[in-house]
Parts: sequence; C-alpha cells; structure tokens
Amino acid sequence: MTTIDLNCDLGEGFGAYTLGDDAALMRVVSSANVACGFHAGDPRTMRRGVEMARAAGVAVGAHPGFPDRVGFGRREIGATAEEMTTDVLYQIGALAAFCAAEGLALQHVKPHGALYNLAARDRHVADAVVAVIARFDPTLILFAPPGSAMVQAASEHNLRVAREIFADRAVEPDGRLVARGAPGAVITESEAVIARTLRMIRTGRVTAINGQEIELTGETICVHGDTPDAVAILGSLRAALEAEGIGVRPVGEWIGR
Amino acid sequence: MTTIDLNCDLGEGFGAYTLGDDAALMRVVSSANVACGFHAGDPRTMRRGVEMARAAGVAVGAHPGFPDRVGFGRREIGATAEEMTTDVLYQIGALAAFCAAEGLALQHVKPHGALYNLAARDRHVADAVVAVIARFDPTLILFAPPGSAMVQAASEHNLRVAREIFADRAVEPDGRLVARGAPGAVITESEAVIARTLRMIRTGRVTAINGQEIELTGETICVHGDTPDAVAILGSLRAALEAEGIGVRPVGEWIGR
Amino acid sequence: MTTIDLNCDLGEGFGAYTLGDDAALMRVVSSANVACGFHAGDPRTMRRGVEMARAAGVAVGAHPGFPDRVGFGRREIGATAEEMTTDVLYQIGALAAFCAAEGLALQHVKPHGALYNLAARDRHVADAVVAVIARFDPTLILFAPPGSAMVQAASEHNLRVAREIFADRAVEPDGRLVARGAPGAVITESEAVIARTLRMIRTGRVTAINGQEIELTGETICVHGDTPDAVAILGSLRAALEAEGIGVRPVGEWIGR
Amino acid sequence: MTTIDLNCDLGEGFGAYTLGDDAALMRVVSSANVACGFHAGDPRTMRRGVEMARAAGVAVGAHPGFPDRVGFGRREIGATAEEMTTDVLYQIGALAAFCAAEGLALQHVKPHGALYNLAARDRHVADAVVAVIARFDPTLILFAPPGSAMVQAASEHNLRVAREIFADRAVEPDGRLVARGAPGAVITESEAVIARTLRMIRTGRVTAINGQEIELTGETICVHGDTPDAVAILGSLRAALEAEGIGVRPVGEWIGR
Repeated sequence: MTTIDLNCDLGEGFGAYTLGDDAALMRVVSSANVACGFHAGDPRTMRRGVEMARAAGVAVGAHPGFPDRVGFGRREIGATAEEMTTDVLYQIGALAAFCAAEGLALQHVKPHGALYNLAARDRHVADAVVAVIARFDPTLILFAPPGSAMVQAASEHNLRVAREIFADRAVEPDGRLVARGAPGAVITESEAVIARTLRMIRTGRVTAINGQEIELTGETICVHGDTPDAVAILGSLRAALEAEGIGVRPVGEWIGR
Repeated sequence: MTTIDLNCDLGEGFGAYTLGDDAALMRVVSSANVACGFHAGDPRTMRRGVEMARAAGVAVGAHPGFPDRVGFGRREIGATAEEMTTDVLYQIGALAAFCAAEGLALQHVKPHGALYNLAARDRHVADAVVAVIARFDPTLILFAPPGSAMVQAASEHNLRVAREIFADRAVEPDGRLVARGAPGAVITESEAVIARTLRMIRTGRVTAINGQEIELTGETICVHGDTPDAVAILGSLRAALEAEGIGVRPVGEWIGR
Repeated sequence: MTTIDLNCDLGEGFGAYTLGDDAALMRVVSSANVACGFHAGDPRTMRRGVEMARAAGVAVGAHPGFPDRVGFGRREIGATAEEMTTDVLYQIGALAAFCAAEGLALQHVKPHGALYNLAARDRHVADAVVAVIARFDPTLILFAPPGSAMVQAASEHNLRVAREIFADRAVEPDGRLVARGAPGAVITESEAVIARTLRMIRTGRVTAINGQEIELTGETICVHGDTPDAVAILGSLRAALEAEGIGVRPVGEWIGR
Repeated sequence: MTTIDLNCDLGEGFGAYTLGDDAALMRVVSSANVACGFHAGDPRTMRRGVEMARAAGVAVGAHPGFPDRVGFGRREIGATAEEMTTDVLYQIGALAAFCAAEGLALQHVKPHGALYNLAARDRHVADAVVAVIARFDPTLILFAPPGSAMVQAASEHNLRVAREIFADRAVEPDGRLVARGAPGAVITESEAVIARTLRMIRTGRVTAINGQEIELTGETICVHGDTPDAVAILGSLRAALEAEGIGVRPVGEWIGR
C-alpha cells in the first residue's frame, strides 16, 4: 500500500492575532509544521499547537524562520551562517520543550519562507542548517524540496529527508515553485489540486507551468492553510487519497533511513 | 568537607551589545545562569555561554525572564499564569537545545529579575512556574530564595531546590534583598562580601540592614557580574572560600533530593 | 443642534495579520484611533490608516500603548513615568509623521488598553502623560474617561479633553467600565447599544450594571471594532444618531477650549 | 573661511545597554545622528540624545535603519520600497517628536548601516527614501556619499544634500568605503585621520587603499564613535581643523540650496 504524509503550516497566530483554522486543519493533516516565535507564533500558540496535534494524532515539526515577525519570515535577511544556525537551534529547542512537556517527540524540521528558499538553493546555508539539526537530534527528519541543496546536505550529514511537494502550487520546469504572486502560482480549484497530487504520487510526474512534463515526487505533501478554502480543499484531498487506497500517516512512522 | 555553589548571571549581551565579562566570570563561578533571549541574550550569546561553560567545567542553568528586552526583565508585567509558564518553558527549551548541541545537560533554572521576585512572593505564580519546570524535566534544580513561595512550591512538586543567598546584597530582617537602589543595598567592599558570605555558610546567620541578626543560608551563592569590580570580588571570594576549606562545585554534583 | 464624535480603534493589524475591517469602520466613524506600533500596528498599517481617514474625512488620533505586542497592550507594565512618557511621545511622533506626509493634522491622543486604564486612575501617570502631549503639541485633544485622573491632569495642563463614553460597554456605579471578560461587560445587541447611547447624549445619564442610575456623558463615543458585528452596530448607531438630529463630526471641529 | 560639519552616530544604546560615550562625543561634533529605535536606540536614549544635543549646540539628525535590533541594522533585509519608506518615515517622525518637545528642529536624515549602503547604490531605493523625506519635511538635509544614487535622487527631488566623507575609513578607487572587516578598512592613527581629512577638505582629493589618487570631498565628515579612541581622535581632529582656520558648524547653518 502506498503511504503519504500530509503537512500544513500551523500555529501561525501571534498574541491577539489568529491566522488559519488550526483546529480544523489538525483533523486533515498527518504532520503539523508549528511556527516557533520568530516569524510567527508565540509560546501560547506553540503550546496549543502541540496539544492539538497530540490529541489529533498528528506529528509535530518545528517551522523555524528568520527573526522577522513584521515580514512573516518572507524577506531574506543578509545573515551569517552562524546567525542562521543559532536562530534555528533556538527555535527548534523552544518547540521541542513544548513537545517534551506533552510527552511527544519532535518529528521533523521544516525551515520557513525565505529561510526555506535560501537553504534550498544555497549549499553553504543548507550544510550549516542541516548540521545544527543533526547535532541537536540526529533522529529528526528534514522537510525539503526534491533535488534541493538541503536534500544534498542532509544526505551528507546522514539526516533523514522527506521530500516535500506542494499540492496547490504550480512549478517551474526545474521543479521549483512558481513565485508567490506570479500569475497561476497558486492552484485554487479543489479538483485540480487533487488530480495533480495523485499524479505526483502515482507516477512521479507533474505538468510544469509552461506545459512541460517533469519528474517530481516526494514523501510529504504540503497544503497551505492560509487560503480561504484551505480546510475544504485539504479535506477533499485527504478523502481522495484514501479513496485511492493511499494511506495518510506521519512520515516518521514509515520513512526509512 | 563543606561544599558550596557559586553562581552568576551571564550571557546578558544582545547583538552588538555586551554586558559583563563572561569569559572572566566563567573562571570563578561553578554555575552560570544564562539569559535566554527574552530580557537579554540572543542565540549567539547563548551558544557562546554554553560553550564557555563546558570548556570551564561550569554547570549551565536557564535564566528566563519577562518578555521585556528594553526593560531588562526588571519590570513586572501583568501576565497570566499561562503566559508566564509558557514563556518560561519556551526559554528553557531554547537554552536546553544549545546544551544538547554541546553534549551538556541543563543543571538548573533561575527565574530572572521581576519574574524571580514575583515567583518568590506569590505562591500561585510559584506553583505554575515550578510545575512547568518539573513537567519539562524533573531532574532540574530550581534556584530560589530561602523561605520563598518558590521553595514551598518546589517542595510540593518534588523539584529539587538550591536556596540562593547573595554575597553582595544587604537583606531585610525577613531575609529578602534590600531593594536595588536603596542606600546600602549593594555591598561593594570585597572584605565585607567575603566575611558575610563565610558567616552565612559557616553559621547560617547574617546581619540584616537594620542590625538585627537573622538566620539565612543556602546552597548556592550569587554574585552579580555587572558591578565594576565583580570579577575581582568574585575571585577573592572564591579564593577565600577555598582557603577556608570550602569546596566550590556545581550544585548538581552534590545536592541531595 | 447636538453634535457628537464617534471614535473607533483602527489600524490594529500587524504585518501579515489583520484585525477588524478598517475600510468599513472608516465609513461610519468621525475619529479614528490609529495604533502606533507598540501594542499593534506597523508603519504600513499606519500609512494606510491615515490615508483611509483622509479619504473618508475622518480625523486621526494617536493610540499609543505599552510596548507589548504579544499582550496587545492589555497588560500593565511596571514602567517608570519617564518610560511611559517617552514611549508615548515616540508613538505620537511616528503617527504624526504619517499625518504630515498626507497633509493632515493629528487631532487627538487616546492612550490604549492598560495604559489608558492606568492613566485614568493614577494622577501621577496622568500628569506625566498629559504633560508630554501638551509639550509636543498643545492643540491636541485628549480622549479620556469622564471624571478620570486624565481629565483632571488635562485641566491643569490646559489641554483640551473629549470625555469618552462607550456605546457597547456596561459600567460600574462609579462610571468605570465593567472589566472585559466579566459577565455582561460587552453589550452586543444593536438596539440596547443605541438606546443607552442616545440616553447618555440626551440626558447625561445611564443605568449601571447593578441597576443604579448614574450620571455619565461625553463628547466622543467609542465603539469597538473587533466584535463580530461591529460594523453593523456602528452603522445602525450612526443612522440612529442622525435620525435623532444628532450630528456626527470629528470632535476637533466643534469642541471648545 | 572654510566651514565643515563634523557628524557622529549617537544614541546607539538600548535599555540597559550603552554604546559609545555620547556625552563626550557631543562636545566635539557639530551634528549628531541619533538612532531611532529600529536598529538601536529607544525612547529614553532618543530623549537624552536630543537634550544633550540642544545643550551642546549640536544639530540633530535622524538615523533610521532596518528593523533589526539583533543585527544592529547591518544586515540587508529583502524589503519592498514601501516597507523601507514607511519604516523610515516612522523613525524620522518619532525622533522629530523629541526635537519638537525640546523646541529644536530636525536638521538632517542619515540612513544607517545596510540601509545607507543599499540606498547609496540602488537608485530605486534612493528615490523612494528621498521622496518620503521630502514629503515629510522638504527643509531636511540628506547625508549621503558623494556620487551616490542618494545624491542623484535628492537632486531630482530638490532635497538638500550634505555629501558625507569618512575621516577614519579607507576608500576604494571608486570612492566607496572599504568593507568593514577588510584589512586596513579602519584608520586608527590620529595623525593619519587628521592628515587625510584636511587633504579632502583643502584639495578635494584622497589616496585610495590601492594607492591611487582620487577626487573625494564633502560638506560633513563622519567619525565613528564606537572605536576605542573615538573621542580622543575626534577631539584632535576638531582642534586640527580649527587650528587650520576651518570652522566646525552644523551643516544646516551654512549649506546652500
């Protein structure tokens, strides 16, 4: 039986602000990327995120970002490798404490936003980030784009990787996401999201934004929780996957080394 | 042989700012309270603090404070118990990650500034803070003033306590510190610091600011690192302790349950 | 003809977060209290708030709060008078710059949340806050609760005051707001909001939460923009006021010295 | 008689942290660039900086930076033009309020660190920053490197410019500063600082780091306050300038349109 992981960014509120419907999303994903307080999230959202995940049987991952709350971690900061790795370690540790207090183990790490994009393309940054994760806990799984510098770095540092593909984002011919904001970047129709996701899982192929057929597959599928119909689309996607006999389970339960 | 722990607040810089001579202090203390990024400190100061402590054989404790960098954690914030405990858990976890990356175990937790004072006098806050520490790691040691609400709460939650006495601060007849800023609050002469500290260790007694003799002793002695002669005074104190046959060692190595 | 000012807190988003429907609120109020970046708001929300106000003919006021974004300025901080007044001056100046860039004059200042409550009851704080406002620009109007320490301080410093009453909040027998969160604190029915507001304007009286009749009136009426039906309630209130022949205009246009 | 302005970055402390000897620097400069709370400074340092400047007859300028306190504004952030200009307007307005409260007029604006470097080389950013300054107050003077995009933008927006040259920094053959950290970037000998500064003022020429003679002059000379001997070097420089009959006065008093 084919198995897949379904992940979503969660716990992205802050103080009086909420973002996304965490409670509803928890019912449809198998892994949650919980914001760690630098680009979004605060100690209360982290506690609630971990508690909800435990109650829902969802695995928890850290979602560390650049220290840029007003920019939501979407702006690249000209930081040194030491700054990035210590920022990442700080955030992972903070979230791991909420997991420990709930008797959960942290499953994975997924860098957020501009840090994800930078570590995906820059091997020097990827090596630094991967090294600090492995040093903190070598059993963690890194979520990273197929073929990225992060995947290469993880391979070298002997850190497990779940290749991440996006259910609702168009891709360039080289497999990278079409930039948010560009026309057609976000796929909003439920049926299209389902069809392309099933195809990536079944065949390892997808149609890029220019019409070209490319190879693209992974072990974990990301759906964004901040689009208006996110919960409905995710629910439909999960139902369609299960109807096709594809199991949806946290990647840490079934991924090999 | 009598044994005592000597602790100091460290890692209180931030970004381009430095505060105190961490490297020099590390050579004279046995336990370091490392700031965790809310009232002082950042991920770089935390990494350096932990590395220096490991190199010097100094035990590391978390020094969590109110989220108030501009106020250095010295201003009480009207926070809920949930806000305080999640803030504390976040900070402890972040520092524990730097310890883990260096192969060290976190030894203790010492709340900072206004949070320390509040938890010392308010049993409701003390219970909440102690409970979250015990839930995260029941082997941690709490640094708290003798007779305080924190000591009572720790006893109830079965968390070990090192009673903290201050080498360079005058005390009220009830054992609490004379408020910083009040006349005579800080004792700056090396000889007076040494004499009163030796007396507290040897006899369990000290002279309060009004001349009254009171009972006051503890397992860990705090010396502030931000006074001009802190390093010199601490060095003299340590030498005097050792000359008197009092061993200076991290409290986690010798304190009982 | 009776004239009244209708004010609302606006520009309370931050970065990727939104809070309240600023565009809709701008169509029904005559004065906007714009958050200044310490408890809510950022330079983009401030620019947009001022631009929308100018376009809608709404007067702009500064809404400075404690430096506590995660607590939304609702937690009292044990700050010194110097800390509070310099924080207030900083925030007023920042917002005044956005007004100046749009060719608008700042109309008023309304302290936010815990700072409002503190300055309302503590004459020492009220004097400090009023003095710094008057020193920055003596033509500004202070929004403050009737009978509060702020009103007294403003009288002494010769600063104009618009007494603020709340359309949708129950009051204690002494005229103060029933604490948010207490039963009955927020009045959510449109008709009740309208009836009690009209009565306060027409008769200067209102029924306190214990049933007692008290005297309470003012020149500016606050409606909260963060309740679910805020825009609808405010629209109904404004229509009812105008149907009763009560003009709704920015207080700076008609208040005397 | 030749006249020159001598400027220094000041007010760069934060909360409990101090940086540089502001009181001593105030005695030797004619213009002070006061940090505005984003990369350094807080409302207290701003108030004190403005008060000290007024007392010393020193003109005040705003020193706005990227919102990056932990990075001291030295890291470029991938911000939009709107983000940069609203951040700049916010900071200028905040400092202008402290000036207004002291009865002073703001003299100039000097972007800080990474923002200075970016606006110096990127005409799009320079235009945006210059436009917002001119819109806020068209009488302000921009401090900018000779020949930079900022100078060009200011010329187009009809904003006055004081070209800034650095007394203690080596330059590349194209006139830009040698990167901080590169060998020879900072000139630490008092005599060399004085000789090259006098030469730039008298002849409009200087020797670049590769030995090449280049044209470089300006109306305001920057000396950094954070080097160990800053105050002594600045004092010697000022004395040397005056001994040579060069008047040291705030640029706003003598610069033409």
